[in-house]
Amino acid sequence: MENGFLLGSPNSISSPRVLTQDELKKIAAYKAVEYVESGMVIGLGTGSTAKHAVNRIGELLQQGKLTGIIGIPTSKMTHEQAVSCGIPLSDLDSYPVIDLAIDGADEVDPFMNLVKGRGGSLLREKMIESACKKFICIVDETKMVKHLGGSGLAMPVEVVPFCWKFSAQRLRNLFQDSGCVAKLRVYPESGEPFVTDNENYIIDLYFQKDIGDLDVASDTILRLPGVVEHGMFLNMATTVIVASELGITVKNK
Amino acid sequence: MENGFLLGSPNSISSPRVLTQDELKKIAAYKAVEYVESGMVIGLGTGSTAKHAVNRIGELLQQGKLTGIIGIPTSKMTHEQAVSCGIPLSDLDSYPVIDLAIDGADEVDPFMNLVKGRGGSLLREKMIESACKKFICIVDETKMVKHLGGSGLAMPVEVVPFCWKFSAQRLRNLFQDSGCVAKLRVYPESGEPFVTDNENYIIDLYFQKDIGDLDVASDTILRLPGVVEHGMFLNMATTVIVASELGITVKNK
Repeated sequence: MENGFLLGSPNSISSPRVLTQDELKKIAAYKAVEYVESGMVIGLGTGSTAKHAVNRIGELLQQGKLTGIIGIPTSKMTHEQAVSCGIPLSDLDSYPVIDLAIDGADEVDPFMNLVKGRGGSLLREKMIESACKKFICIVDETKMVKHLGGSGLAMPVEVVPFCWKFSAQRLRNLFQDSGCVAKLRVYPESGEPFVTDNENYIIDLYFQKDIGDLDVASDTILRLPGVVEHGMFLNMATTVIVASELGITVKNK
Repeated sequence: MENGFLLGSPNSISSPRVLTQDELKKIAAYKAVEYVESGMVIGLGTGSTAKHAVNRIGELLQQGKLTGIIGIPTSKMTHEQAVSCGIPLSDLDSYPVIDLAIDGADEVDPFMNLVKGRGGSLLREKMIESACKKFICIVDETKMVKHLGGSGLAMPVEVVPFCWKFSAQRLRNLFQDSGCVAKLRVYPESGEPFVTDNENYIIDLYFQKDIGDLDVASDTILRLPGVVEHGMFLNMATTVIVASELGITVKNK
């Protein structure tokens, strides 16, 4: 398969009609939930793909097919969804080691590095997914890129609100060789700054060219005072599940 | 002189009586303000030493000996003090390049690396002092240490409130070879968590042993999701002014 992915169960999609992107997301999510076992502490992701996994875990709990699950939500939104699904919840303070996390991504490169956080939950997601024994990333095929930033969509950076224009300028300067544009994320309706669950702002970075060594880029961003976290999740996913028209592909580290 | 400091003006302290620590702080602060020139954009520090510099700048403005100064305060507290002194103020968004900053420190090592933030303003101080052409650090002699952390007092780390216990545990684990103790900073009266100007918490780290390579320690702390900033100011001060009973010593980079 392209990108070196191993073919999983290509025959699981039998319908001849073209599947919607949301159906592909659901297929990836359901596949990931097969890894969940009773008694596990599970990191619950945020976003349009992860929500299918949360719903599925709730369903299996209701049916008695899973028991003793404790969910650790990665956002206030997922917290609410999980409560409505009847999933017992806790947090990292009580469960500093998590058995398995399931979450989506905005971009996945051939080395299983991710961009996350277009939904704005990058910090809590990174705190939880860095505390996992296993982290399964679930995506539809549109998320696969040759290099991070390659989709032309945003790579988010969470910054403190204090002097965010200064931080945006510094981020732009860091990556000027990559043709970087830095924009404050705003609510489209009001034009007001988007505020994260941690009361911070998001600067979205857009790159015209490859940003080079990702570990170097990561440290360089984190060294800027005012930066809280960025959306590159490097060397964190242990499994990537991709749903496409051709079937499900599963890649393990 | 010890620590390789150059003797400045030893005769400037003529009184035979023993000077208080606050008088030494004031002497260092007044010396630093001699570097301020009319028309400069000045980073205004926070704390018991920096406050003397802010007062002195206000005094020279009142007397007409300085004109056209714009102050960039490093905390809400300094903002209020500077307003009451009649110093015109702005911020980093409007003035992303600062001519000179003057601020205290909690520890200074022989290489002019600093620990700051026992007052809780480390993040804004670091944002502003990393944007300066010159950064003068002013201390009394009690702040000089052989290595950072060597005073046995706190090295602060600003963290998001979300799952701070988890972050404290991770910080402790990072430095367990240095006998690290990590404590949430609280208000002594109420026992409630101390809240920074950026609405975050402070984890104070205490070390029994040297933490080794400071650049490595810095990057390792910043890579922890949940950490916003730490109190090590490495390779940032361009001048250190130390006031002691023996006089003022000035060390330049």
